[in-house]
Amino acid sequence: MTTEAQVDLPDATPPELVNRVVISVDAMGSDMGPASVVAGCALSARKNPDIGFILHGRKDELEPLVAKRGLGDRCVIHDAPDVVTMDTKPSAIMRRGGGTSMWSAIDSVRNGEATVAVSCGNTGALMALSMVRLRKLPGVSRPAIACLWPSQSETGYAVMLDVGADIRADEHDLLQYARMGASYARNGLGIQRPRVGLLNVGTEEHKGRPELKAAQALISEGEASGKYEFVGFIEGGDIPSGAVDVIVTDGFTGNIALKTAEGTASLIRDLLKQAFRHTFLSRMAAILALTSMRRLSKRIDPRRVNGGVFLGLNGTIVKSHGSADPTGVSAAIKLAFQLAQAGFSRRLADTVASTSPSRQDMP
Amino acid sequence: MTTEAQVDLPDATPPELVNRVVISVDAMGSDMGPASVVAGCALSARKNPDIGFILHGRKDELEPLVAKRGLGDRCVIHDAPDVVTMDTKPSAIMRRGGGTSMWSAIDSVRNGEATVAVSCGNTGALMALSMVRLRKLPGVSRPAIACLWPSQSETGYAVMLDVGADIRADEHDLLQYARMGASYARNGLGIQRPRVGLLNVGTEEHKGRPELKAAQALISEGEASGKYEFVGFIEGGDIPSGAVDVIVTDGFTGNIALKTAEGTASLIRDLLKQAFRHTFLSRMAAILALTSMRRLSKRIDPRRVNGGVFLGLNGTIVKSHGSADPTGVSAAIKLAFQLAQAGFSRRLADTVASTSPSRQDMP
Repeated sequence: MTTEAQVDLPDATPPELVNRVVISVDAMGSDMGPASVVAGCALSARKNPDIGFILHGRKDELEPLVAKRGLGDRCVIHDAPDVVTMDTKPSAIMRRGGGTSMWSAIDSVRNGEATVAVSCGNTGALMALSMVRLRKLPGVSRPAIACLWPSQSETGYAVMLDVGADIRADEHDLLQYARMGASYARNGLGIQRPRVGLLNVGTEEHKGRPELKAAQALISEGEASGKYEFVGFIEGGDIPSGAVDVIVTDGFTGNIALKTAEGTASLIRDLLKQAFRHTFLSRMAAILALTSMRRLSKRIDPRRVNGGVFLGLNGTIVKSHGSADPTGVSAAIKLAFQLAQAGFSRRLADTVASTSPSRQDMP
Repeated sequence: MTTEAQVDLPDATPPELVNRVVISVDAMGSDMGPASVVAGCALSARKNPDIGFILHGRKDELEPLVAKRGLGDRCVIHDAPDVVTMDTKPSAIMRRGGGTSMWSAIDSVRNGEATVAVSCGNTGALMALSMVRLRKLPGVSRPAIACLWPSQSETGYAVMLDVGADIRADEHDLLQYARMGASYARNGLGIQRPRVGLLNVGTEEHKGRPELKAAQALISEGEASGKYEFVGFIEGGDIPSGAVDVIVTDGFTGNIALKTAEGTASLIRDLLKQAFRHTFLSRMAAILALTSMRRLSKRIDPRRVNGGVFLGLNGTIVKSHGSADPTGVSAAIKLAFQLAQAGFSRRLADTVASTSPSRQDMP
């Protein structure tokens, strides 16, 4: 098996990582502490013999956790004394320099030890650091965060971007989102020619903001070179309907749609629990339906589609929920592994480079 | 019982409407045809002895439907030969003038025969006609569409606006939305001092677009005069969480959030059905849980919170789903009745007039 991650490794590969797909993991960023992150790594390692880790964080804290989980032969630790907390301002991180586990985790991607990094830390800080250390791909003006969305489509998921890297996006950004999202759907979901939709308040051509009308024309023209099928404008109801594989929108709208959907799922989950507790019969029903309900719950559990992927940089960063438990961390690592194994970072760079007349070339 | 609707009736009140709260109903706009609308009226009439109707549409079609449903002693018919279809452009309606059932239904509000009208017709046309015939309230620059949202709050609902009247909204519009939404929550949900939140991509004060920061200051200053409690920025997940009673946002974001939530609920409903069909045990469970599940389904059924309310005009218009069946039409009529009985149109006008330094007065 040859993968991009292995090819990129420098000569002095530590024995723990030889012949493994290496994921760089910020072990300190989680609200639940490093124990939860290391437990998530262990869950992934148990299911996947091909995975190896570079853990970034306080060596004295991480070593006993790694030993406890029996991960010693699958990972190396890069000592980083500082932690980026949820309150740390991006400017402070820039000043303090390389001492944080987040910085160190990103630098493992920068120097080619890994092609994908995972962090549970502060989204704003992670994006700011990633942009400074990895730099944007040529032709990309605004990187985006893409997330997977439970859907009625054949794969069971749709990709939506941007869900919060930047609150603005003009028509050129939206075109790049379409290309990057299609590449992600190809490499992350295995869809050869993803169906791309542009989120709007109606499907008629004359509807919506001016930049959406301009983007509609650009994304339509880019169909062949971007290897996607453009279905045109879609509405909020189409996001989970299975009508599309990639949903393109600006980071303000995408973030609100994502959180609204999570809130709605959580409301229904709570109401469902109440319904099952309501009468003796419904409590009986709950017992009988246990397995089926667990399957449903697994399907819409946000922890299992845990991982916003930063697209448009020289390297791929997976942002896990800050409050992710080991199941959530393991889901983010699984996604990182799939992308690393598919050689996604290089493929995305090729896609953007080959199809993008860079913005500077435009009249 | 004295209500605004009755007080406003002209002297020559038809005997069918005397001592009744009169709702003006566009009987022709529904995708399901006038039979569905008349059946919805009949459902409401059966539950509510105080309601009366003015039905607008083709008299020869409506008369047999009214007779069949036994509604003859509760309604009068205003003959209107033309129908606004889903494809009719607003400009065409303006040209064609008063012949449509939609125009006629709005005019019953304009001339005081009713204070609230209900239509299942095309939203864009309905808003355009309403603005022309009813005119905006003084101090309101952009009218808004408000909808009810299932929520964990005490009342079980939250109000969100704008969900699609206009894709733009500046800080002054957002302030008016806060006031109008609070008035709606008081009169429609019975909440004396509604909690108002401003939808954004984060709850920190520095986040979001410039107009949101400006609106935050204005809405905060307007707390006392608008008789609401301002909780500040909220995120998409807070919409159904019960943290607020009124969600303020622009019509682009609101429309996408609404449709995303509907799509998510519909996805989960489908997955739930699949789960219950999956095994013999789960099919047994489905039978046992039937009553509880019906209660849940009723709670999140969009037909039961059917009705976008147009706010900011001289009179209130309730927009029902175009594909509403009799249950959905009846829900929209129930909402219209509550608002008419509470004297909402006048109260809203008073709220806007008393609390609003009109935009022209501003420096």
